[in-house]
Amino acid sequence: MAKWVYEFTEGSREMRDLLGGKGANVAEMTRLLGAAQVPAGFTITTEACVAYMAGGRTRPEGLDEQVSDALGRLEERAGKRLGDPGDPLLVSVRSGARESMPGMLDTVLNLGLNDGSVQGLAERTGNERFAWDSFRRFVQMFGNVVRGVPGERFEREIRAVKADRGVRLDTELDAGALRELTARFRGLYDFPAEPLAQLEQAIGAVFDSWMGERAVTYRRLNRIPDDWGTAVNVQQMVFGNKGPTSGSGVAFSRDEVTGAPEPSGDFLVDAQGEDVVSGVRNTQSLEDMRALMPEVHGRLMEVLAVLERHYEDMQDTEFTVEEGRLYMLQTRDAKRPAQAAVRFAVDAVREGLLSRERALLTIDPGRLDALLHPTLDPKAQFATLTTGIAASPGAAKGRVVFSAADAVAAGERGEAVILVRPFTEADDVAGFDKARGILTSEGGKASHAALVARGMGRPCVCGASELHIDLDAGRAHVGDVEITPEHVIAIDGSSGRVTLDDVALVEARVSQEFSTVLQWADELRRLGVRANADAPGDARKARELGAAGIGLCRTEHMFMAAERVPKMRAMIVAETGEERRAALDELLPLQQQDFAGLFEAMEGLPVTIRLLDPPLHEFLPHAHELPEGSRERQQAEALQETNPMLGTRGVRLAILHPDIYEMQVRAIARAARDVPAPPQLEIMIPLVDYEAELQIVRELVIRTARAEGLEDFAVGTMIELPRACLLADLIAEHADFFSFGTNDLTQTALGFSRDDVEGKFLARYVETKIITRSPFETIDEPGVGQLLRMGAWLGRKAKRDLKLGVCGEHGGDPESIAFFHDSGIDYVSCSPYRVPIARVAAAQAAVRSAP
Amino acid sequence: MAKWVYEFTEGSREMRDLLGGKGANVAEMTRLLGAAQVPAGFTITTEACVAYMAGGRTRPEGLDEQVSDALGRLEERAGKRLGDPGDPLLVSVRSGARESMPGMLDTVLNLGLNDGSVQGLAERTGNERFAWDSFRRFVQMFGNVVRGVPGERFEREIRAVKADRGVRLDTELDAGALRELTARFRGLYDFPAEPLAQLEQAIGAVFDSWMGERAVTYRRLNRIPDDWGTAVNVQQMVFGNKGPTSGSGVAFSRDEVTGAPEPSGDFLVDAQGEDVVSGVRNTQSLEDMRALMPEVHGRLMEVLAVLERHYEDMQDTEFTVEEGRLYMLQTRDAKRPAQAAVRFAVDAVREGLLSRERALLTIDPGRLDALLHPTLDPKAQFATLTTGIAASPGAAKGRVVFSAADAVAAGERGEAVILVRPFTEADDVAGFDKARGILTSEGGKASHAALVARGMGRPCVCGASELHIDLDAGRAHVGDVEITPEHVIAIDGSSGRVTLDDVALVEARVSQEFSTVLQWADELRRLGVRANADAPGDARKARELGAAGIGLCRTEHMFMAAERVPKMRAMIVAETGEERRAALDELLPLQQQDFAGLFEAMEGLPVTIRLLDPPLHEFLPHAHELPEGSRERQQAEALQETNPMLGTRGVRLAILHPDIYEMQVRAIARAARDVPAPPQLEIMIPLVDYEAELQIVRELVIRTARAEGLEDFAVGTMIELPRACLLADLIAEHADFFSFGTNDLTQTALGFSRDDVEGKFLARYVETKIITRSPFETIDEPGVGQLLRMGAWLGRKAKRDLKLGVCGEHGGDPESIAFFHDSGIDYVSCSPYRVPIARVAAAQAAVRSAP
Repeated sequence: MAKWVYEFTEGSREMRDLLGGKGANVAEMTRLLGAAQVPAGFTITTEACVAYMAGGRTRPEGLDEQVSDALGRLEERAGKRLGDPGDPLLVSVRSGARESMPGMLDTVLNLGLNDGSVQGLAERTGNERFAWDSFRRFVQMFGNVVRGVPGERFEREIRAVKADRGVRLDTELDAGALRELTARFRGLYDFPAEPLAQLEQAIGAVFDSWMGERAVTYRRLNRIPDDWGTAVNVQQMVFGNKGPTSGSGVAFSRDEVTGAPEPSGDFLVDAQGEDVVSGVRNTQSLEDMRALMPEVHGRLMEVLAVLERHYEDMQDTEFTVEEGRLYMLQTRDAKRPAQAAVRFAVDAVREGLLSRERALLTIDPGRLDALLHPTLDPKAQFATLTTGIAASPGAAKGRVVFSAADAVAAGERGEAVILVRPFTEADDVAGFDKARGILTSEGGKASHAALVARGMGRPCVCGASELHIDLDAGRAHVGDVEITPEHVIAIDGSSGRVTLDDVALVEARVSQEFSTVLQWADELRRLGVRANADAPGDARKARELGAAGIGLCRTEHMFMAAERVPKMRAMIVAETGEERRAALDELLPLQQQDFAGLFEAMEGLPVTIRLLDPPLHEFLPHAHELPEGSRERQQAEALQETNPMLGTRGVRLAILHPDIYEMQVRAIARAARDVPAPPQLEIMIPLVDYEAELQIVRELVIRTARAEGLEDFAVGTMIELPRACLLADLIAEHADFFSFGTNDLTQTALGFSRDDVEGKFLARYVETKIITRSPFETIDEPGVGQLLRMGAWLGRKAKRDLKLGVCGEHGGDPESIAFFHDSGIDYVSCSPYRVPIARVAAAQAAVRSAP
Repeated sequence: MAKWVYEFTEGSREMRDLLGGKGANVAEMTRLLGAAQVPAGFTITTEACVAYMAGGRTRPEGLDEQVSDALGRLEERAGKRLGDPGDPLLVSVRSGARESMPGMLDTVLNLGLNDGSVQGLAERTGNERFAWDSFRRFVQMFGNVVRGVPGERFEREIRAVKADRGVRLDTELDAGALRELTARFRGLYDFPAEPLAQLEQAIGAVFDSWMGERAVTYRRLNRIPDDWGTAVNVQQMVFGNKGPTSGSGVAFSRDEVTGAPEPSGDFLVDAQGEDVVSGVRNTQSLEDMRALMPEVHGRLMEVLAVLERHYEDMQDTEFTVEEGRLYMLQTRDAKRPAQAAVRFAVDAVREGLLSRERALLTIDPGRLDALLHPTLDPKAQFATLTTGIAASPGAAKGRVVFSAADAVAAGERGEAVILVRPFTEADDVAGFDKARGILTSEGGKASHAALVARGMGRPCVCGASELHIDLDAGRAHVGDVEITPEHVIAIDGSSGRVTLDDVALVEARVSQEFSTVLQWADELRRLGVRANADAPGDARKARELGAAGIGLCRTEHMFMAAERVPKMRAMIVAETGEERRAALDELLPLQQQDFAGLFEAMEGLPVTIRLLDPPLHEFLPHAHELPEGSRERQQAEALQETNPMLGTRGVRLAILHPDIYEMQVRAIARAARDVPAPPQLEIMIPLVDYEAELQIVRELVIRTARAEGLEDFAVGTMIELPRACLLADLIAEHADFFSFGTNDLTQTALGFSRDDVEGKFLARYVETKIITRSPFETIDEPGVGQLLRMGAWLGRKAKRDLKLGVCGEHGGDPESIAFFHDSGIDYVSCSPYRVPIARVAAAQAAVRSAP
């Protein structure tokens, strides 16, 4: 016969599928700490639930006997019996599936109480009110959770009794009142007084709840299979509210803020767990606990050390002390801020607790960001004006400006300003450079403002929709509060908060511990990490943060600078070949100068330069802003596009206007000649669909470069269109390297315009669980990831030593980095401030995939 | 030793790779008609060329001997010798690769002439001028083609001699003058008098030309491998200009215009082939030839019959009669207009010449369009005002109107009008319905105007860029010609011509022969053919043309009607749920009425209804056209999208606003209840990326339909995004059918915005041979086709009986249809007027792929 029931002493954390998450976890603690340290109990398996459902809601053969046996042993061990009018055993009954399911049956506490045992409880605790309060709570929970009596019916009775007694608060009800309430509750349904019947019904109710509407809906939304079933946990109740030798608390195995190697936590004497977390009473520290009950405190310290060593991570626990005896109720890996995570990792290795590999895995790389940017003084009190989307981390403060031109002017005076716009466009990039931070009222994490701000390491809050900006009037308001260029504003791009208060900023520094962690990461990772950088300042920052080169230099950003835009426009509106060449001749020395600065900063490291990518109309104002009949207007109209993302861009421009790329290649070649240590040059052609496009433009690049005496360089392509992934073998014939542009690949593979979907339906998609996260933050593995792997495989099939990089935003996302590592990518490229994150994430991926 | 040389009697059309296209073809005719009917000769193989190149431009061992032997046999057969001063053999030398390569060496004629043999030629022809003219042409050709002497040098000598003699035309030069010219030509380079040397040098020049710059460039552009090499053909010259028993002509085996079973052609007595095609002399008919030389004519008739039977198709031939003897120089399958193609196919089967299967294959389905639309009277003489892109076939005539509103007003009065616009938008669709034809000055074959016009079977000329339209002034001009609403204009959507002349229109009718062909097609094809239709009129037309159902009903077109747009807008700008529902309640009966009309027209056939697809802002005017501060303007601004193609459309709308789809499903259900023979309903969800989207919306559709008492219907999805193709197995779990939307799939897989690329870079891409045709006309097999096949395979893997359709524009393109047939698709859906084309193309695909 099948084994349907496991005592906690029989299970372990590996048995999650059979015992559910809760059952496996409590069993593991029982094994580890001994049965005396964890309230005893047993788990009815998920298989029993499956059999129950398969049998049309009949308990499978043998289940009742096994439960009865397990209960007998539990009573024996506890020295108490369920329903005993002298010293009753009380148990909790909890559901517990493989994965936590909030849509399921809740807990039933205090099971085992009835008219007899409530007397025993009152006598043993010497607290009649406590006993009757426990009983009425049990009757209420049982009625509501097991029998489905609406909660409102119970609330109505409570109100009636309070009115009768003329009291306002539940706590004012005395034992007599609670006894009356219990009787009224029992009038609402047929309460089973027999404890075994209580237990059987509670178990059946947990099983039934698996097929309940809420649970079914939850499973559907979270794609959990129906045939997993749920386990049921039956556990002896312990009480922290039995007087001065009892208490409850939460304890971290180390300081949860700093990571310092001393346990910290909150404790309350003579209290239950809810009292500690609810905040109704002022808690005490573990130091206070040591003074009150030194022995129990000493045992807790030992237990924390044992748990930390066993789980190989900092632990966050819950415990109860019942009459001088410590019971551990829960333990889990502690969530912690970046500085604590880094401190723990370094200390754990020093203490011999963890290997470097394991220690690295305890760090959540996504949080490391906080260690690299200034923050609002965490001790400061301030009023939040409004909150937007935390789009680019770090805090900034400055006077409000409403245009890029004002930002440039102020920035050149050395004044700190925040650029405030409804949204931003290519034209505004010069202003980003001079502003300390960017605040927009529209757009999300993938808006232009967010992308550029992250790329440049500027703090940014986006989509602060309460902020109404009147650009013409040069002011904005949030409700009644007006904001003008007289105001100084502070933004926190890590939390999305905006304030008009004068909050101090705290500068970040790379701690000794952080350096150590990064050094381990570099030793352990296979994946290279480069940075996306367009200017010498960014390039230097990237190297400082450990980038091994530039993986993406977007040359169009160079054309956006205020003094260059007119020349770029002259080139675009040229009517004759000569006019066009003349304009390009003026741009050439400027580009050359840009490249020279970049190359100097990189001192011989690899630099991947992407030739002009955006459609030309991005360099012109909107047509309707230009004088009627002007040549610029005509050209702006002719270049207008319905879907610019899918228009005349990238290599398509080069096929139409080869002279632009020629100019750029000349500028690269001349710049490389001028610097003492020329970089390892990689010239990259964007948006290739057809191998012939690359073949034609590659020839143009090589011919032009050679004519300038440049021989030593690679020519490759962005792979950023589905077609290119599917036909990567043909494209590879003409490429020395591929760099996957996962931003555009996501846009095309999913048909998602980044500019349009974040503000519109993506949030709803996350709400309805269609997706768990924006595909622009973490790569969509099944779709976009599949294309990337096909591209990588086909590319290497055609050319075994093809170098493969990723230069989309995903290059700085830890989860995506793990996928790239597993996909055999050679390097990722991300914004400079995400380089440390990528280094750690790459190392974690290497450790996880090591044999 | 390798066999480098094949006589014409040894080859066949299967030996194309070895003998080149020309060599294989002339060999086939030699085998078929006997050596006496085709001027004799031999072919030097492509392998000889490869060996020549591999050996560093040395003729491979044995080649000279084999050429010499073949020449010997040729002389023996001809009874003449090369260079014989008595009766010289003259030969032509021509290159001939596997595929025709215009960038290669041209022909050298009259090889074998020198000072001695020119006398023999003069004596044998009794025409000294002819002999010297032949000689000077040979010296000129040899110098230019073989030796690379610039043509200008020869022209200069001709001018000098003409000046000396005081004549204007070449034909005025007498034998003496031509003799002098020959001498002058020979002064320009070292002319080899020895005929064998002439031949060797000509052969070497052909080989060398394979690696010449022009040929290399041509091969690069056309992706022809360098290692194919070219063959060389040496053939005896024959002369049609040897007097009244000689002549040249072209002959079709049947009437090339009507297809009637009598040969037709052009003939000139005492003339060479160039004279017939150049048009300098008025040609005679084959009837005239019969009178002049009845025996030769009889032999020609026999030959045409033999060729037709052998090639199993109508033939287009060239022939020469030399002194009463017929020589066939060339034959190929005849290009022919649609009516001739259909007539031939039906006659050929009746005559027992071809099986139905073979007969069907002789028809170019793309041309059948012409049989279904009115045409400009082919006999009419008229002045073309301007020419645009032939965007939707057929001719139309009417008064000019410049707005959709005017078209509607005029149309309702029964007046024939042509809608003339710079470009069209969704708003203009009501005008399409009432106009006879559409003319635009912007956009290409995939512009909105073209797509809608084709869908509605309206003739359309697009992108007539010489036409300048001033909408405000209500007039247009082409150069100095002004066009106002006073003018009647005629357009020909099959040729792109536009005229202000009063040209008669000729109505089309489905001929008896065409019906026969369509009936065969239906018996032979496996692929179903449905139509895209949104209105009862279109649906009836579709059935008349043989559609087996509606494969795509775009419900948004129903909302575009003038009286509905305000209601749709009210729904979009609704601020409360009630306002929104009220607006939807007003739309419901209108939608229901539309569906009822459609269902009635289809009488129980399948109808696939696509729920609302376009982004909502398409129903609003442009934001800047709306009053400042109005709710409509605010909403229009909020809905604006940077890339609407990739924005909030299709299923995304349904996730955000489920009530729109609910209303549509209710309207469908109620309409189905109201008609006597409800259709086989297929409700289609567009733009699915994630299986969860379909799951959620499918549930909504089923729930809503059942609530209306509708039980019998299928729910499926468009597959039109790369992600959907890659994950089609997951999506298929929730779909009864897939319909591949190859338009949008092309846009996303290639990153091509249809609205933007046709007018911009696609033409350049065709010019530079990056692509051979627009991927919106014929499916991009390697990329988009690969995705489609993955989608089909994965879908059927998950659900064996999944129904698969295609409803993009490609569903009406013959080449794409063949691909869909081979991909296991069940049916295609195309615009009603392309249904007959699709039926024939589907049958051809079935015949071609039959075992």
